[in-house]
Amino acid sequence: MSSPEIERLIQMLSKLPGLGPRSARRAALHLIKRRDSILNPLASAMARVAQSVIPCGVCGNLDGTDPCGVCADKRRDRSSICVVEDVADLWALERTSSYHGVYHVIGGTLSALDGRGPDDLTIGALLGRISAGAVKEIILATSATVEGQATAHYISDRLEEIADHDEPTFRLTRLAHGVPVGGELDYLDDGTLSAALKARRPI
Amino acid sequence: MSSPEIERLIQMLSKLPGLGPRSARRAALHLIKRRDSILNPLASAMARVAQSVIPCGVCGNLDGTDPCGVCADKRRDRSSICVVEDVADLWALERTSSYHGVYHVIGGTLSALDGRGPDDLTIGALLGRISAGAVKEIILATSATVEGQATAHYISDRLEEIADHDEPTFRLTRLAHGVPVGGELDYLDDGTLSAALKARRPI
Repeated sequence: MSSPEIERLIQMLSKLPGLGPRSARRAALHLIKRRDSILNPLASAMARVAQSVIPCGVCGNLDGTDPCGVCADKRRDRSSICVVEDVADLWALERTSSYHGVYHVIGGTLSALDGRGPDDLTIGALLGRISAGAVKEIILATSATVEGQATAHYISDRLEEIADHDEPTFRLTRLAHGVPVGGELDYLDDGTLSAALKARRPI
Repeated sequence: MSSPEIERLIQMLSKLPGLGPRSARRAALHLIKRRDSILNPLASAMARVAQSVIPCGVCGNLDGTDPCGVCADKRRDRSSICVVEDVADLWALERTSSYHGVYHVIGGTLSALDGRGPDDLTIGALLGRISAGAVKEIILATSATVEGQATAHYISDRLEEIADHDEPTFRLTRLAHGVPVGGELDYLDDGTLSAALKARRPI
């Protein structure tokens, strides 16, 4: 049909999340028609990312430097570690500009179905960071899914083991459940609504 | 937030049709995490397309050769020209494997709103191809939208002018309107249903 070069481009584009075979074809044509304004700049942006972006040896974030911008920032509070599943979650929290501690990306959730055990996540490295001391708070910000909560539970069990129970050095917290800001009660699922009610606060 | 290289990649990805800012961020992360299996192959697919794909000087198709694969194919029937708005439409027709003539991509529709007149389309080149003779059928396969139909109407007017009315050398056709194959009548718009009824055929 179309040239093998174009077919190959469509095939590779269709591997991106959010692009099916049909939208990959549309995207390919869009690229070919806008060679100077999109295709070439996108290709060079990809080349630069491939050359420069590396995982942070401390927290697992992806950035142009190791340690990453967050870990290297002297103003961040190193005594607070926020544990997230994925780099995308770290970025989402950073966009809020309301957290000033550091992170630890564990790289997913425990999953019996997908055969992901504790050794497939960076939980050992997290325990190492905490054992090194000076950590006052660990926020378990895994997803509010069954697997995310099971993972948080597993991590808190492991943290219990290394904690000194006579003189606890860190506290363990999780994100609040509740009504999303801007959300209508009517459309909210029962679990969230009941959690929001239980965690109600004085005005 | 994340590194300038990553931000730039997200910005360029969000210019693809079908990817908004949020899905562009997801796609960027997907690329970074799969450097060898997706990022690098996609980058080289893009480079190959940028180097090799050119518009066909005859019909306007995009291919690795000029004339394109369709125009160069000796088995295609050069006496039938199918006029389409865009290369995507040509590819869609090619995927059906049920047309064996050649094409002419006019490059869009006439649009007073967007300020696209006849000179912005390759209608002159189409008339040139037809005047050169040996064309027996012209299929006006523009979209079934108001603008697509207005464009088809304009082209058929221009073709009338060059046609020899005493001895017509070509016939002008358009795609059939009707019920999409696999479509339910109940969900069909009135215009399509009425067109399908008018164009009913003996079984």
